[in-house]
Amino acid sequence: LERHWRSRGAEVVAVQGLGFVGAAVAPAIAASRRADGSPRYLVLGLDLPSGPGPERIAAINRGSAPIGSSDPELDRLTAQAVLEAGNLAATHLEMALGLADYIVVDIPLDVADRTRTRPGQVEVDQAGMVAGIRTVGRNMKPEALVLVETTLPLGACREMIRPVLEEEFAARGLAGGPKLAYAAERVMPGPDYVESIRSFWRCYAGTDPASAEMAEEFLSSFIDTERFPLRRLGSPAAAEMGKLLENSYRAMNIAFIQEWTLLAERAGVNLFEVVEGIRQRRGTHDNMRLPGFGVGGYCLTKDGLLAQWAADRYYGGGLDMDLTLKALEVNYHMPLHTLELTRELAGGELAGKTITLCGVSYLPGVPDTRNSPSELFLDRLEGEGAKVLVCDPLVGRWQEKPGVRVHGQAKECIRRSDGVVLAVPHRQYLELTVAELAPRPGRQPFVVDAQNMVDDQKAEDLRRAGCRLAGVGKGHWRGRGYQWPAA
Amino acid sequence: LERHWRSRGAEVVAVQGLGFVGAAVAPAIAASRRADGSPRYLVLGLDLPSGPGPERIAAINRGSAPIGSSDPELDRLTAQAVLEAGNLAATHLEMALGLADYIVVDIPLDVADRTRTRPGQVEVDQAGMVAGIRTVGRNMKPEALVLVETTLPLGACREMIRPVLEEEFAARGLAGGPKLAYAAERVMPGPDYVESIRSFWRCYAGTDPASAEMAEEFLSSFIDTERFPLRRLGSPAAAEMGKLLENSYRAMNIAFIQEWTLLAERAGVNLFEVVEGIRQRRGTHDNMRLPGFGVGGYCLTKDGLLAQWAADRYYGGGLDMDLTLKALEVNYHMPLHTLELTRELAGGELAGKTITLCGVSYLPGVPDTRNSPSELFLDRLEGEGAKVLVCDPLVGRWQEKPGVRVHGQAKECIRRSDGVVLAVPHRQYLELTVAELAPRPGRQPFVVDAQNMVDDQKAEDLRRAGCRLAGVGKGHWRGRGYQWPAA
Repeated sequence: LERHWRSRGAEVVAVQGLGFVGAAVAPAIAASRRADGSPRYLVLGLDLPSGPGPERIAAINRGSAPIGSSDPELDRLTAQAVLEAGNLAATHLEMALGLADYIVVDIPLDVADRTRTRPGQVEVDQAGMVAGIRTVGRNMKPEALVLVETTLPLGACREMIRPVLEEEFAARGLAGGPKLAYAAERVMPGPDYVESIRSFWRCYAGTDPASAEMAEEFLSSFIDTERFPLRRLGSPAAAEMGKLLENSYRAMNIAFIQEWTLLAERAGVNLFEVVEGIRQRRGTHDNMRLPGFGVGGYCLTKDGLLAQWAADRYYGGGLDMDLTLKALEVNYHMPLHTLELTRELAGGELAGKTITLCGVSYLPGVPDTRNSPSELFLDRLEGEGAKVLVCDPLVGRWQEKPGVRVHGQAKECIRRSDGVVLAVPHRQYLELTVAELAPRPGRQPFVVDAQNMVDDQKAEDLRRAGCRLAGVGKGHWRGRGYQWPAA
Repeated sequence: LERHWRSRGAEVVAVQGLGFVGAAVAPAIAASRRADGSPRYLVLGLDLPSGPGPERIAAINRGSAPIGSSDPELDRLTAQAVLEAGNLAATHLEMALGLADYIVVDIPLDVADRTRTRPGQVEVDQAGMVAGIRTVGRNMKPEALVLVETTLPLGACREMIRPVLEEEFAARGLAGGPKLAYAAERVMPGPDYVESIRSFWRCYAGTDPASAEMAEEFLSSFIDTERFPLRRLGSPAAAEMGKLLENSYRAMNIAFIQEWTLLAERAGVNLFEVVEGIRQRRGTHDNMRLPGFGVGGYCLTKDGLLAQWAADRYYGGGLDMDLTLKALEVNYHMPLHTLELTRELAGGELAGKTITLCGVSYLPGVPDTRNSPSELFLDRLEGEGAKVLVCDPLVGRWQEKPGVRVHGQAKECIRRSDGVVLAVPHRQYLELTVAELAPRPGRQPFVVDAQNMVDDQKAEDLRRAGCRLAGVGKGHWRGRGYQWPAA
């Protein structure tokens, strides 16, 4: 295979790690074409021969994406590269690394426990990354470029990755280490999964100028750099930091709104209209976040922890990322506020109540359930003795909670429930009618709107249908005759 | 005067409080014209017969602005209204309130101590506001509108203002209270001081629909509502909250960057290039703040405290605005990081050193020194035994530190100093040359750049001139041969 493509002028790329990132990056790189229309690269996807690895490898080699996505482009590109062009294949054989001119590292790196949010407490599972990098060092061509895309604690290229590569090179009798560069992946869950690889700003840095040059050339070959120019930063630590800072900023701005949400509810204020007014200040305030149910996903929930870990481990300790960590703590606990509203509407006691939970993914329109806030919410709700009917139109099997039955249709569940919690603004839930949300007028059902899914008109109609109502950030519902328990 | 203008069809506006807001609002309202070009209003400015009141009143009646501003429009409009059109006058006589159809309240309301940033600790000086409102209630026409513009703790219209007005109405034998509305002032210090009144989004709310209607009509008569449409909110508390939330958001985003600044410096990262890279994400991340010296001004430093006070006082307590308060604490202490850098460059010991401080206003290009971070910085610097030469090209007299001599020219001060701290990015300081910043090459002067005022080229040139260098957020300077003390 390699000789076939080499003879046609293609270079070889290895993508190590075929999870949420690598599974999209591999076909996206395989789609790169030279001026004459021929594939620029042979792409070899690598994963482990254990765990989910074999299944992922088999899926790709069948021509289908190994991860669920709402982006049809992912399956299409994979099929196209594997079955038509024939320039994408997956394997667990590490010798594939020895063929590559570019090795893209998409091995996941996670914290041990997202709830440990104090300085000195954060633990990072380095084993998988270190083992993967060791494999790379053992097998790679000395002149190849290692491009790490995994979100890393800043300093990790220098402190975690490079030393391992150098060790392996030394063991092979090679001087120094390989060319090494960093450019954080930007894959966005959702309908533009694949396009987010081609069409997004990337910052990158090399451990030396030659590595940076080679990374720039490589990235330019599959990113639309006309519209999204690359930006070279002064050091890998700067590029690593960028990703952590960006996601921490978002997490911070979400957490910040939470305390104003609580205040707004007490003050009878509709926080949504207040934020809308403030967002008129374009450029400085238009990204203000809205009240909501919680924060999930792989990145926003952990990247700040990686920064604290780096501060602790690589930069001397004694530096507390107070606001960054506090934000993660607030975001993690956010669904407990919706739990409070639910408990209030249930009359102060959840035990024995049947409640429909609408939505378990962490984003609307997306089947991704990683670190979904619905998880903590469900645990606590059940912990207080409620019977919960869990629904999601997109999630067939809740990976993190395989024992929980997920209903595709909410209507029937609601009919059997004392109340419903609207947790994820999937289109299907926005379309639920008053009759569907309050199907048994005599029975005083209740609706908790955790994501601004019920507008004031619908709220009024629900109230008329005998429904009790609460909404996150919707303090004004308390004052307008909605049947709210005394504050 | 009143009869003259009434006979010409004008209505009467009283502006109560002629400080930073009222002094600009009064001439801005006086500039409003009817279709035939004649003044729409007679504007009567009111201030107290004590404190700075008489001076302000005299200034306006002479036709000049009672506050210093970098906006020439303020003096022009004042002169125009007082001396040409004759529809603006100032007085301390409260009977003027009895003539008004609209009473605009711009009485300042402040916290007792900006450093008390814990829940339950915040104290608001209500006396001035309550006394001013009492005067209004005692004198006003029953059918007039009271429009409060002062930034208030949310709930204050209902809990602080309205009860006083109702008391005074009751004492006068009038039933109920007057029409009352709230629309937070948006005056922005700087070259667009006056224009920021005409050209800015305003949210407003009335205590009842009639008050809201009247407020809308009035605000529309001097705001460019074509370009900046008014937005009516559901309650005065919502409008009050909007201002507090907006400023707290800004304060939060500034504070958030501070811990990343410290991390960047440790990690050898140029945080400015990192943030620039992140800001490419328009709409979500382009308002990310930059490392800096500190936060000053009247609003950003206190508005979050007003929210906490409201939570404590009006909404039951037990709600901690953790992130909001922490941000204020971080921002207040921010200049101490520049102090640390200064101390390091001074060899670990500030006693006996002569240091030039460039800038005491809280914004570039503006003479406003309210709560300037230079204040804490200077106190601590002197507290450690340094002799400080204080400079600012715009501030003749430092109002909050009247005992401090402020030099207009920095060059001569720098020549007599061991080092210079660039604290405010006034144009004059950006233009300082290498020779001016390091005038005595043999003496190893140092420069602390607290506001990204020295680019990498100039830094290199300064280093060549024998200068030691540190910059807030400029970790990369540590690694590039700049003479930094061992980290």
